[in-house]
Amino acid sequence: MRLKNVRGANDIVINSPYYIDSKTVPKGNYKQIFNNNNPIQIEIGTGKGNFIIQKAIKNPDINYIGIEKYASVLMRAIQKLDNDEIPNLKIMMFDANDINEVFASEIDTIYLNFSDPWPKKRHAHRRLTNYLFLDKYKQIFIKENHIVMKTDNRHLFEYSLKSFVDNDFKIVDISLDLYNDDIKDNIPTEYETKFHNKGNPIYMVEVKK
Amino acid sequence: MRLKNVRGANDIVINSPYYIDSKTVPKGNYKQIFNNNNPIQIEIGTGKGNFIIQKAIKNPDINYIGIEKYASVLMRAIQKLDNDEIPNLKIMMFDANDINEVFASEIDTIYLNFSDPWPKKRHAHRRLTNYLFLDKYKQIFIKENHIVMKTDNRHLFEYSLKSFVDNDFKIVDISLDLYNDDIKDNIPTEYETKFHNKGNPIYMVEVKK
Repeated sequence: MRLKNVRGANDIVINSPYYIDSKTVPKGNYKQIFNNNNPIQIEIGTGKGNFIIQKAIKNPDINYIGIEKYASVLMRAIQKLDNDEIPNLKIMMFDANDINEVFASEIDTIYLNFSDPWPKKRHAHRRLTNYLFLDKYKQIFIKENHIVMKTDNRHLFEYSLKSFVDNDFKIVDISLDLYNDDIKDNIPTEYETKFHNKGNPIYMVEVKK
Repeated sequence: MRLKNVRGANDIVINSPYYIDSKTVPKGNYKQIFNNNNPIQIEIGTGKGNFIIQKAIKNPDINYIGIEKYASVLMRAIQKLDNDEIPNLKIMMFDANDINEVFASEIDTIYLNFSDPWPKKRHAHRRLTNYLFLDKYKQIFIKENHIVMKTDNRHLFEYSLKSFVDNDFKIVDISLDLYNDDIKDNIPTEYETKFHNKGNPIYMVEVKK
């Protein structure tokens, strides 16, 4: 990624009315930015934003925060929002490693959609379902730990199932071929649509503890 | 299945030197039929026998028992054994529902290969990974509960993962596409070879508790 691109994108993101700077909200206080007590659900790795935007539009009684590390990608989500007014949607920009520095005991559900698989074993600790992340997530849930994951990456999915179970999650729902199930409520990410169209099976698991 | 067929098959099975009648061995005493203290591993639903026969040939220090309900199928396994002498292999014929009437605290590993998926919800209790079966298996393991399952049936696999996890098993190993992994030690069943050749992914999971 070239710095020039990032610099332009950064301005677009931080000037958006949807953008929240984590420095401006003390952790544990995110319901104040929505001015209500509705549950707060977050997507870590929001990318170009289709999932979180559609979720917010379809579920006005739930608050959504899309989190993405890279301005160059997040810019695309922001641009989609130009002509909409979605009061239950916010966008944030930070590294998932800082998730428990930003939130505290206030999140209802985490969505992990098509996360980076980090295929090399020595990078396993970077996978968003590694126990190091699960331990951080634990600190931000308001009640139950509740994670919904989708991916087309078989090895990431196998790894994640093992990791969830090792960390005492139960499986609420699972599909090894989402598009051959009844998925009337499924909201695809941009990446998901592309890979489903290539014929790849899409894996989904919902876990709780 | 026609009675005539079953009657003929039954004779072939019970006259085989590999056949053990569960009535002749008190439960908890199966190591005596092998005359050694090697671990005893069983396959429930042995079918035509390729898996358990090859397992026994490749692992002379482990004892194997293939269990099958239907003589008409088991006959095929017996016929494969005609010219071999495999001291660490036995064949039994009974319904999996009786598993804890036959064995007690003596089994090292259970293999479930391409079990009947019983797709209808009202038949879920017949699936060999239903909690009713897991509770029976618990009584026959000598130490850890250790189950290795393969199937090409996605819904059975999804159901089984959920059931294992609900019953506090951990995932030791998992593959959602066994033939695209390193499977040098894999022994296919007759059914597995057929369905793999059709292009179906073969699912595998090894669980312990």
